[in-house]
Amino acid sequence: MTDQVTDRQAQSGTNDVTVNGIHIATLQETVHAIDQEPDLGQCKFRARNTWLGGNHNCTTVTGFYGAKQEIAHRQQFELHADEPPILAGNDEGANPVEHLLNALASCVTTSMVAHAAVRGIHIEELESELEGDIDLRGFLGLSNDVPKGFTEIRVKFKVKADVDNMERLKRLTAYSPVFNTITQGANVDIQVEAK
Amino acid sequence: MTDQVTDRQAQSGTNDVTVNGIHIATLQETVHAIDQEPDLGQCKFRARNTWLGGNHNCTTVTGFYGAKQEIAHRQQFELHADEPPILAGNDEGANPVEHLLNALASCVTTSMVAHAAVRGIHIEELESELEGDIDLRGFLGLSNDVPKGFTEIRVKFKVKADVDNMERLKRLTAYSPVFNTITQGANVDIQVEAK
Repeated sequence: MTDQVTDRQAQSGTNDVTVNGIHIATLQETVHAIDQEPDLGQCKFRARNTWLGGNHNCTTVTGFYGAKQEIAHRQQFELHADEPPILAGNDEGANPVEHLLNALASCVTTSMVAHAAVRGIHIEELESELEGDIDLRGFLGLSNDVPKGFTEIRVKFKVKADVDNMERLKRLTAYSPVFNTITQGANVDIQVEAK
Repeated sequence: MTDQVTDRQAQSGTNDVTVNGIHIATLQETVHAIDQEPDLGQCKFRARNTWLGGNHNCTTVTGFYGAKQEIAHRQQFELHADEPPILAGNDEGANPVEHLLNALASCVTTSMVAHAAVRGIHIEELESELEGDIDLRGFLGLSNDVPKGFTEIRVKFKVKADVDNMERLKRLTAYSPVFNTITQGANVDIQVEAK
């Protein structure tokens, strides 16, 4: 991103500038360190899931590997998934495809905000609505011709910011890792072992 | 799935059979209804996200469209996302790519459990560990040659069930909508409007 950056820190020469709630110096230190030593950018993100019966299961997230070290989160995160009654669940949590929409929403939002911050684009408010299409005949195995996953996902952002920056903000969403994982695809290797 | 189903409900002729904690009659009613009237399987899943400042944002999930009607969840779900301090956040929630791993874990788990249930495969315990690789140089814009999303995701299941069913259980994971969205890709249309 360095070629397009016109952040306030660079302009002002101070180290405590915050844009869009993001401490620019911290982010730029990370960028600079990875630029100098690419191995620092190699990350392994992790999750552990336990089935709780029926359609209810719980994921815990405790830490990840990055900057050539194991890094613990300040707290353990627990995320519950279930299905609504019409899909034979008890609604104890958002269902997995709704969790996917959350991952996409949060990632595109964070990507836009952070990349805007280092470019000096101030955002006052930001919200989004997502809607994705799934034909359950795929999941249920009723037709091999019907895709099992989302086919189309629509994301509508409303941003309170300089109106001249709307197109630029839209372009920044393309940096999102989850957006890229969903649109470009990723390899998923699944192993199943007896316990 | 009907061609491969050998569920206990069909065998026993009762309507109150539960396998793997899933009420088989409820699931089969849904399958039968969609098989008879495919439009019932057209679903629109939704999420709404609000930026809370910095890298912190919150998604709410309240309902979805399916079975030709709007369906409300029994409760509203709130999902927080943030980044760890090294990525200029405050660790107020799992980060977006960890949320994606949760979506994948929960979906593959649910898909395996539900498809096993209607086939009469009993699962006693089920847990999984996920790990995915991201090179941050992509997200940070330091290299156009580096993918911005996950490249490889590894999922390791440990299952307490009849050991002869391990390969069959592995095949059932291929029904997962999130697995298919990530491995096959989906179109994501993003609009950004001034508020």
